[in-house]
Amino acid sequence: MEVHEYFMAKALELAKKAYQIGEVPVGCVIIRDGKIIGQGYNRRESQKNALLHAEIEAINEACTNAGSWRLSGCAIYVTLEPCPMCAGAIINARIGQVFFGSRDKNFGACGGVLNLFEENFHHKPAIIGGILETECTGLIKDFFANIRKSEG
Amino acid sequence: MEVHEYFMAKALELAKKAYQIGEVPVGCVIIRDGKIIGQGYNRRESQKNALLHAEIEAINEACTNAGSWRLSGCAIYVTLEPCPMCAGAIINARIGQVFFGSRDKNFGACGGVLNLFEENFHHKPAIIGGILETECTGLIKDFFANIRKSEG
Repeated sequence: MEVHEYFMAKALELAKKAYQIGEVPVGCVIIRDGKIIGQGYNRRESQKNALLHAEIEAINEACTNAGSWRLSGCAIYVTLEPCPMCAGAIINARIGQVFFGSRDKNFGACGGVLNLFEENFHHKPAIIGGILETECTGLIKDFFANIRKSEG
Repeated sequence: MEVHEYFMAKALELAKKAYQIGEVPVGCVIIRDGKIIGQGYNRRESQKNALLHAEIEAINEACTNAGSWRLSGCAIYVTLEPCPMCAGAIINARIGQVFFGSRDKNFGACGGVLNLFEENFHHKPAIIGGILETECTGLIKDFFANIRKSEG
């Protein structure tokens, strides 16, 4: 298995934890020197907090572990294309590379609705989308199909 | 004093706390029904955390106090135009009105570099900039002038 698929599979494991507690299944890991230094999954509903997307939890943990707000040299793997808040946080933390699984045409800020990394800000991370896309998209579709079934 | 100047003055008091600990002086309050339910100031350097802008601290506290990730009906007052992360967090929290003091042409996401609230996302807060602009801009200019002076 390629390194990108390996780390995206780790993010998918975290997304499944979100699924199990009734959250939109998104998971994230942050890598430095081949090691996971931050991870998280969406907990917005359960924690009643608009900030608690997977990426924010992972960046928070990575800053703590790195002892710095600068995550230069890090890569972030997230199962869903980051929203504007999370893409902005990635810029603020100077994360160098962004890998995501599923494209988000409704709220994505890495090409879905717009691309914050191509705008005139001081830091422009590299983006690669579509890593384990079938699995990442399938998990989210399955989640919403189950919600509709239970509401039906 | 008008209500907007009153709350921006509260945000300015918080910005001065940031100044005192050597942080870029930005402060923020969130208002619901005329009361402050969240507040914060920039602590990125002292906490070594890329997420800890004034608005993020204030939104975090407001969600805790509201017991919900939805801050509908709230207004946010911040001394500096929000960056992409913070503007995205404002969208995610469904905050209705955004008042800021100083314009940020280098990193602002409410008209400075781009305007996230005019993009095709699901929530478009109202924006009013320039509240106590002279005081808010003066504080930041004074902060950077002092840094340059101490750096000789």
